[in-house]
Amino acid sequence: MRVLEQTIHKIEKLDEEIMERARKRVDSLIKPPTSLGRLEEIAVQLAGITKELTPSLDQKAIITMAADHGVYDEGISSNPQEITLAQTLLFQKGLTGVCAIGRVSGAKIIAVDIGIKGELPKDAGVIKRKIKHGTDNMVKGPAMTREEAIQSIEVGIEMANQEARNGTRLIGTGEMGIGNTTSSTAILSVLKNCDPLEITGKGAGVGPGGIEHKVAVIRKAITKNKPNPNDGIDVLEKVGGLEIGGMAGVMLGAAANRIPVVIDGYISTVAALIAVLIEPNAKQYFIASHASAEPGGRLASELLGIEPMLTMDMCLGEGSGAALAFPIIEAAVSMMKHMATFAEVDMEI
Amino acid sequence: MRVLEQTIHKIEKLDEEIMERARKRVDSLIKPPTSLGRLEEIAVQLAGITKELTPSLDQKAIITMAADHGVYDEGISSNPQEITLAQTLLFQKGLTGVCAIGRVSGAKIIAVDIGIKGELPKDAGVIKRKIKHGTDNMVKGPAMTREEAIQSIEVGIEMANQEARNGTRLIGTGEMGIGNTTSSTAILSVLKNCDPLEITGKGAGVGPGGIEHKVAVIRKAITKNKPNPNDGIDVLEKVGGLEIGGMAGVMLGAAANRIPVVIDGYISTVAALIAVLIEPNAKQYFIASHASAEPGGRLASELLGIEPMLTMDMCLGEGSGAALAFPIIEAAVSMMKHMATFAEVDMEI
Repeated sequence: MRVLEQTIHKIEKLDEEIMERARKRVDSLIKPPTSLGRLEEIAVQLAGITKELTPSLDQKAIITMAADHGVYDEGISSNPQEITLAQTLLFQKGLTGVCAIGRVSGAKIIAVDIGIKGELPKDAGVIKRKIKHGTDNMVKGPAMTREEAIQSIEVGIEMANQEARNGTRLIGTGEMGIGNTTSSTAILSVLKNCDPLEITGKGAGVGPGGIEHKVAVIRKAITKNKPNPNDGIDVLEKVGGLEIGGMAGVMLGAAANRIPVVIDGYISTVAALIAVLIEPNAKQYFIASHASAEPGGRLASELLGIEPMLTMDMCLGEGSGAALAFPIIEAAVSMMKHMATFAEVDMEI
Repeated sequence: MRVLEQTIHKIEKLDEEIMERARKRVDSLIKPPTSLGRLEEIAVQLAGITKELTPSLDQKAIITMAADHGVYDEGISSNPQEITLAQTLLFQKGLTGVCAIGRVSGAKIIAVDIGIKGELPKDAGVIKRKIKHGTDNMVKGPAMTREEAIQSIEVGIEMANQEARNGTRLIGTGEMGIGNTTSSTAILSVLKNCDPLEITGKGAGVGPGGIEHKVAVIRKAITKNKPNPNDGIDVLEKVGGLEIGGMAGVMLGAAANRIPVVIDGYISTVAALIAVLIEPNAKQYFIASHASAEPGGRLASELLGIEPMLTMDMCLGEGSGAALAFPIIEAAVSMMKHMATFAEVDMEI
């Protein structure tokens, strides 16, 4: 049995018994019932995931998957493709957006080369799990083979497994890849069965043909490849990206290790849709962070069915929104740990 | 000149010159332009407030104002009025919601008795600035005198001044007061010139007469007192609360000391509306935190014109939402401090 199957097999439903205990504790805390809203829901979810009422979240990590996209050749981005490689080198130096935001909660940032075009220096501090030098151009055929799609997911799973072994208790997903809003929008168009025009945005900067050209490219890729919307791996293979597969793998791997996983913005949410198509139970391990400023962001969140907590008009990616949400998750644990119950303070409401 | 006038006099506009420098730095950071959205705006605002590009926010405090409401006698709440006093005693013990959330960012919680009914023990650790034992019943006449309304604001100003002297660099507002959604909704109805029915919610628990009765009580108080919607102090005097005045004072005091002030949810936002009526320039020092689950919350935020960042379905008060937003503000500073510029990494986009 290969890693993906083993992992799916390991993903269990949340522990209802401890969630019931968590709910009772939440309801006994000195506050009007439900007045801490989503912090209460997160606390109950964390209990169901970790089987602990007050899990320690001291060790936190953002796993940022980096890869390039063959569809870049169609002129869908205003950025040089080399940005993917150049920017990835800066993660381990602590210089990018997610690094700065992650510092606030002491999160470790792990950059993974899962398919960057070109070679990183050996001493870059980036984890090398390159499947190939970027996807193929999805306008001309599938972005990758089915085997490569599965491999990309398995790289993510192995990263999550490794972090579980390292003692990481909270994982966030992130990505870096010039052209990946094009792939994400293709995936979302297929899953939502809508025209790309409704959901295509400018990403990190749209090419000279504007949004119209980007829409046309996405339409062409879908028509050419006819992805099966009921098969997450097929969609990933045909119009996806290696980093999107990698993130879906991190999510599945985190779930299999009973680690809560914080979904970043648009591209991460699309990866979450793929993960949930592969194994619906994984969703119970997900926490959404921020509502991306990308037009498809809201639709992706609705389709996933998990509402983001933060509205920051952000669209950087890298895992920056997930990192920004880490202290909120910690606040939910602090609520469980440090708030008194009515019984403890001898009060009644 | 009394404290309030002196304070208003001290509130300056933000420093445009350093904001321009901050904007330039934000735009030079290694990310697509504006892709960190509201973090960028906050970073620029903080620069304009503090006159520093990377202000240190190590010392943070939530000032929680506690007071009772004479209108409680009308049966608008399902909670015993004694909860105000009992709960206030728990702030200094670190046991309430805001305390648990504030721990995540190391914020100090300062509880102030500005008008609790009854006497707190001497050793309670609560700052005693009681103006009177709760407001008068606004259905029968003004909630307080104009002098008391001004005093309540001045207590808040003095608390902010004291924190400024203590080296606090980020202040959040909070409150505790059974019955204070009734006062807040009365204030908002007057300022928005709308019927209370449109915006009245259950607060921490509505009395036996339900929302309808609460609405009727608010209507009666407004009809009886005819607050002048253009005079913040008049509105506060007639249908307000001592803790609402106190919070407005904290906001004005923070602005006068060039300290950014984070507005909590519904009741804090209503206090911010009063503060802005008194001195419009104060608003530039405000950062909104979360969208309260109370129905008036959204309307109050719209009227204030500052969109909250967090949607947590919370309605606890105490400053809990402000505390939850502190790490976001810290992330904005971390972005300015730790992200590289394109020039520093020799990259172009």
